[in-house]
Parts: sequence; C-alpha cells; structure tokens
Amino acid sequence: MSAPNPSETGLTFEQVRSVSPALERYTQDAIMGNLWKRPELSPRDRSIITVSALIARNQTIGMPHYFNLALDNGVKPAEISEIVTHLAFYAGWSNAFFAVAVLKDIFAQRGIGTDHLPPVSPELLPINEQAEEQRAAAVQASTGGIVPGLEKFTTELLFKNLWLRPGLTPRDRSLGTISALIANGQSAQIPFHLNKAMDNGLTEAQASEAVTHLAFYAGWPNAFSAVPVVKSVFESRKTKAA
Amino acid sequence: MSAPNPSETGLTFEQVRSVSPALERYTQDAIMGNLWKRPELSPRDRSIITVSALIARNQTIGMPHYFNLALDNGVKPAEISEIVTHLAFYAGWSNAFFAVAVLKDIFAQRGIGTDHLPPVSPELLPINEQAEEQRAAAVQASTGGIVPGLEKFTTELLFKNLWLRPGLTPRDRSLGTISALIANGQSAQIPFHLNKAMDNGLTEAQASEAVTHLAFYAGWPNAFSAVPVVKSVFESRKTKAA
Amino acid sequence: MSAPNPSETGLTFEQVRSVSPALERYTQDAIMGNLWKRPELSPRDRSIITVSALIARNQTIGMPHYFNLALDNGVKPAEISEIVTHLAFYAGWSNAFFAVAVLKDIFAQRGIGTDHLPPVSPELLPINEQAEEQRAAAVQASTGGIVPGLEKFTTELLFKNLWLRPGLTPRDRSLGTISALIANGQSAQIPFHLNKAMDNGLTEAQASEAVTHLAFYAGWPNAFSAVPVVKSVFESRKTKAA
Repeated sequence: MSAPNPSETGLTFEQVRSVSPALERYTQDAIMGNLWKRPELSPRDRSIITVSALIARNQTIGMPHYFNLALDNGVKPAEISEIVTHLAFYAGWSNAFFAVAVLKDIFAQRGIGTDHLPPVSPELLPINEQAEEQRAAAVQASTGGIVPGLEKFTTELLFKNLWLRPGLTPRDRSLGTISALIANGQSAQIPFHLNKAMDNGLTEAQASEAVTHLAFYAGWPNAFSAVPVVKSVFESRKTKAA
Repeated sequence: MSAPNPSETGLTFEQVRSVSPALERYTQDAIMGNLWKRPELSPRDRSIITVSALIARNQTIGMPHYFNLALDNGVKPAEISEIVTHLAFYAGWSNAFFAVAVLKDIFAQRGIGTDHLPPVSPELLPINEQAEEQRAAAVQASTGGIVPGLEKFTTELLFKNLWLRPGLTPRDRSLGTISALIANGQSAQIPFHLNKAMDNGLTEAQASEAVTHLAFYAGWPNAFSAVPVVKSVFESRKTKAA
Repeated sequence: MSAPNPSETGLTFEQVRSVSPALERYTQDAIMGNLWKRPELSPRDRSIITVSALIARNQTIGMPHYFNLALDNGVKPAEISEIVTHLAFYAGWSNAFFAVAVLKDIFAQRGIGTDHLPPVSPELLPINEQAEEQRAAAVQASTGGIVPGLEKFTTELLFKNLWLRPGLTPRDRSLGTISALIANGQSAQIPFHLNKAMDNGLTEAQASEAVTHLAFYAGWPNAFSAVPVVKSVFESRKTKAA
C-alpha cells in the first residue's frame, strides 16, 4: 500500500526484476511490507521524512511515487508546498526547483490550484523572542562575525520569516529539516536542529525511527554517521532535564 | 580500449571538444591512456570501483558507457546485478533505481535475461558467527541501543542476508562498498569496511590504487579526504600483526 | 536581471508559483533583488561561484540559466571552458560531463567555436617552484607515501599542469575551487585551498560573501559547516602576518 511502487517512478516492478530480482523482493518485503508498517512513526511522518530526503538528494526518480503517496498519506498540498520552499534554504535552491519540476504536474493532475497553496505573505506565527535572541547570539559567538551577510539572511529570511510561516507546523518543519540533514550526512548541523525538533514535539522514539527509515532512502552510511550525534543530543537533554 | 568513451554516454568526443578541448585530451590521455592501464588494479577491479562510484553519486551520464565496459572487462551480469542491489543499501534506494533505469536497457540489448541473474533466495554463504557477534556487539556498544530498528535491519537484512549472497564474492562486495564510501566522502564509515575488505582479500596496494582511481571519478577532494583514514587503517593492521 | 529566471531553466516563474508562490517570491526578492546586488562581490564573481556550485552538485536544472548569465556577466567562454575542465578534477569527471551536455548547446546557440576556447596545450604560467616543493613535501608528510599514484597525478596533472593553464587566472581558479568545496561540504580540503585563494588575491570580504552566496545555492547547512573552517583560516593568516 505504501512505498516504492516503481510503476509510478518510471520503473515498473517488472523492470526492477529484469535487473535484480532480489532488489524487487527487498523493496516489496523489507520496505513496503515491513518498514512502512512499523508503528514507531505514522505513514504521514514517514512521507515527510521520505520526500525531504528525496528533495535533499535530488532523487527525482522516486519523486512522482512519493509525492503522490505523501498526498495519499495525509500530507496536505499546502504542506508539501511549504516543505519544498523550506528545503530550498536547507538543501539548496536547485533542489527545490527539481522538486517543482515534478510536483507541478502532480498538482495539475490532481486539480490542486494556488487556492490550495500557502499565500506569499501569511500572518506569521508569533516569534519566541528570547529563543531567537539566544540563537542569534550563539551564532554571533561561534562565527565571530566573519560572515555578516549569512548572519543577516539567516535571521531575517529564516528565523524571522520562513520558520514562522503557518503552513507547516514547527514540528513537521523540524522533521523535514533533520531528515534533509541526515540524508546528506551533514552531522555538524544536526545537534541544533534535533534539539529544536524535540523542543517542537518530536519524541526520542520518533527521531530514532527516522534514522532507521532514512537508512533505506539515503543509505546505511548516512544513517550510521548520524547515530553518534543523535545519541549525544539525547544524552545532553537527559542531563539538562535531570 | 577502456574508459570514458563519451560516444556511449550520450556525449561524443567531438562534443566534449566543443566545450573543452583540454578536457577531451585529459580524458583520452590521463584516464584512458594512463590510469586504466596502470598495473596496480585489473581492468575488472577498476570497473567495479567505477560503477560503484557512479551509482553512489547518481552519475547517470557515465553509466551506459561504464556498465558496458564492466561487462566487457569480465564483470558478469549477475555480479553487476548484485552490485546494484548491494548499493541500494549502501548508497540509497533511489541510487539503485537510477542504475536499474540504465541497466535494464543494456541487459535487454545484450539479451541478458533473468536466467543470468542471481535468484531472489539463493543458498547463502556460511556465516562467520564469531565475527558477526563481535560486529553486532560493537554496534550495540557504540550506539547505546538508541536505534533498535536500525540495529535490527542491519543484522537481519545486511549481515545475515545481503553480505552472504553468493552472486558476488565478499572481496568484490567489499571493493564496491569502500568505493561508494570514498566516492561520497563518508570517511566515518571507511575504517570498518576497509578492514573488512582487507580481511576479505583486498591488498594494501589495491586499496591505495582504488583511492587514486576514485580521484578522477569522485573528485580529488574525496580522494584526499579518504587518505588519512586509509592510512590509519593500514597502520592499525600493522600494529595488530606485529 | 541576474539570477534564477526559471524560464531559462526549463521552469517558468508561473510554474514555480503553481507549486509555491512563496518560493517564487523568495527567488525574485531575496536572490534576484537582494543577494546578487550586494556590493561585496561583483556579478562576475557571483557567476563563477554559482556555476562552480551547480557543476559540483550536478544541478543541471539551473545550468542553462546560469551559464548564460555568466556569459552575460563577463565570464568569457574560454573561462567557462576552463572552469568545467578544472572541476572535472575537483568535483569528479561526470560532473564536468553533465556541464558539457548543457554548455555544448549554449556555445552552439551563441556561435562560440573552438577558436574561442583555450588550446589543449597552451604555454603554461610560470611555476612557483618553492611553493610547489613545499606543497608536495606537505602532502608526502601527511600521506606517508601510502598513495603514490594519487601523489603522482596530483603533482603532474594538477599542480604542474592544470593550475598553470593561462585561460583562467589563478584567483578565479581558486574561487571556483573553494566554491565547489563549500558547495559539497568538503571542509577538510578548504584550509589549503582558501589559503591558496587568498594568496592568489581573494580578499577576506570576498571569501565571506562567497559563503553567504553559497548558502542559497548549496543550502544553509553547507554554508554554516564552512564557517568555522573559514574563520580558522582567517585567524591563522592574521597570526602569521602579525
């Protein structure tokens, strides 16, 4: 029911079988029959994680199937639109444009017009001024002010704008962000965003299962490289809470 | 005779020349005329390394030429099929699917049917129980049990199944794995897999030349980032042996 | 005037809007209306940085627009040709071939023939023998001689040939190199090349702004991961100069 139906990715199961009967079987049994049915994450969460990983890695071959599956799993068109916009910043502008190239046709096929999409300038969520001041100060301290342009855009575009757009909950926005980071092996940026994700409501069990899920979509090495970083975040939060 | 003949990648030498006469010359002289003829690795090994790097990096433009060259260099269809399946796990599912999209046509053109491909459930190679117990214990110790799903899939799907499939020798499976790791700059995962590769019969001279070979296909920065890790593995094995 | 006009990338602004009205607005306002107009870098420098990042990341969807923009911004065809050749070594051979696949049509459309391109074997720039000896010795010391093939190709092909080709100034060659490194998150290789870039005339302000510029094209995580490395290079040069 869920996950890689190659017939919607430009590949049929028969085509996969014509190169590797074993790969077809792993896809059907391990991914569709097992991974997506594990209760640790909802199918909707798995869809957010998967499409974020595909966008972050330019995996256009899987996008038609997984964008459709995400819509079927309850991710709203407006939420997918926000994920693409969000990952322009967190994975690179062209990554978002590759996703647009696929999604425009899916939205057209499903009759999803701009009236279903988030407006350009919605009323923003209220900002947590104290947390934002701490974030900006921490960045300033660590960068030593050597990249003023980057600091400025980060504050104005990302934390005082993008992250406050109401079309995607902060928790789901965080889930997409850490999925993109893990999928691209960007360990150094995981601690800040995993902490933010957990502050936004992501549980330890969900974060753990996201790593497991991403092993299939971004490869075992990216999953294993994330583990020590995730572990140290879990531990540091327990220490603080104690 | 070997290596990048752009005419089979959708690019002709003339087209490369029309953008960069120097790039065409480097391709013909340095890669085809020199690199592929160096005796430190057989053309068959160079093919395994190259196709693994291309799959790991989604370099579809080079796949038609290098998949054909691999078959010409003695990599059997069943072995290429196993490499694709193996790298679904070690590079990501979509990476394998991109390779399938190219290989299905090559297999069809060459009349390679499923009777030439590894069965879904072959009799597996015998497992080294002691080594597997040590591996699982080491993972458990380092992860602290925070990713139970990942541990479970790693044991059941990878080390008690994928790695024991007989269609590709453990040594060649290891060669493809470390090639993918180096090609994607995943240094943290190199020590375990380079040790495994050398336990499986890869020599120091071959591992060294694989790094040299990958400089061309994955870029100098990935090759140079691998060097200190490879060096420390070589040294640690000498210490143990002493 | 500058930057991502999706109509030349295969995407129109209308298509971007059909998936994300906000993404279109960010593109028009933040990137075209703001980033590219910042005075810290010339449009020509921004073009070198952008095309280097796109080549390094296989972002073919943005290439038609940005190659054309680079030519409009004063990057000569011969210089673009050299950037592609240079990045074959610094990003991987297939990356250069993907760029060739796009550029061959642009050169044809603009009537740019091989008479406008750098010859295969031009008279090379004079080599700084002392600096080259130091570089080779440093590599030898750090690698411990474990990758003789890589050392040989690095000296003969890269530092005694590629870097001395006169079709691109050493400063612009360095700018393309560090852009590719930052765009791919290859932090370990940044110190050597950023020092070389600054020795070749790149200023601190320009290097800082390059990081800011790359945040949009390679994603915020790659920009932020580069910051501590860039900072330590800036500091070490001040210490030496003091």
